[in-house]
Amino acid sequence: MTNNLIQGVGIHQLKVFVDERGALLHLMRNDSPLFKHFGEVYFSEINPGVVKAWKRHSRMTQYLAVPVGTVKFVLYDARVDSPTSGTLNIWTLGRPAEYKLLVVPPGICYGFQGVDSRPSLIANCSDIPHDPTELQALDQYTAKVPYQW
Amino acid sequence: MTNNLIQGVGIHQLKVFVDERGALLHLMRNDSPLFKHFGEVYFSEINPGVVKAWKRHSRMTQYLAVPVGTVKFVLYDARVDSPTSGTLNIWTLGRPAEYKLLVVPPGICYGFQGVDSRPSLIANCSDIPHDPTELQALDQYTAKVPYQW
Repeated sequence: MTNNLIQGVGIHQLKVFVDERGALLHLMRNDSPLFKHFGEVYFSEINPGVVKAWKRHSRMTQYLAVPVGTVKFVLYDARVDSPTSGTLNIWTLGRPAEYKLLVVPPGICYGFQGVDSRPSLIANCSDIPHDPTELQALDQYTAKVPYQW
Repeated sequence: MTNNLIQGVGIHQLKVFVDERGALLHLMRNDSPLFKHFGEVYFSEINPGVVKAWKRHSRMTQYLAVPVGTVKFVLYDARVDSPTSGTLNIWTLGRPAEYKLLVVPPGICYGFQGVDSRPSLIANCSDIPHDPTELQALDQYTAKVPYQW
């Protein structure tokens, strides 16, 4: 494990405008330099302490943020031909300081855990809509990923 | 005021997949019959009891849902040339039963109120990105809209 950023992974500050009525939170715009193509936007809610791991997409790039609660993300570069193959990256996302866009390219094993006392919400603005044929699930306890939840 | 649906306004059930780990909630896919164009996706959080009203877009169509909390929406058809001009529509959106997509076309005066005991989250997957030149704000107490918050 190193602290290098996995190739193709990105982490970008998102804009938040706070006032006493409630915040306005950016996720993605079609004129963002990060925007490539709109596939789907959906939410994954995760209850306190729950782990959802591992998954790997063969075609989808995910654009993730956490508008509610706090979520720990673990990413593992499982691409054999990647210069960062075998690298593990870990982030904890949530407001206010860590309201960020996490870009996860295809081929990365990823999992996440709700680490707030209330349910957390992950938003994903992906470049293709959900397609079960391009999504691989791995057992949470697989030895293929060097991380123990 | 009538109970007719304002012309161009739509309300559509969205899919929710619930398990003990937390729900998965649809918002928009590029292969949805409702999808036209991706402009921006962002969140508006609204604190308990707070009213955000009134606003009117001249070009943006909004595609709204409430993944967290409960929000009351009031829509008023302020288009003079609309067959439903003067019509008021009111919805309260939130999970589980009212996790719906509310489509608000340009020209509609709209406002909303957080009616949960916790902050609520509105997601908007709009057809154009935010542009202040196409957004008009009206006073919450204007006599132009026949609704008192």
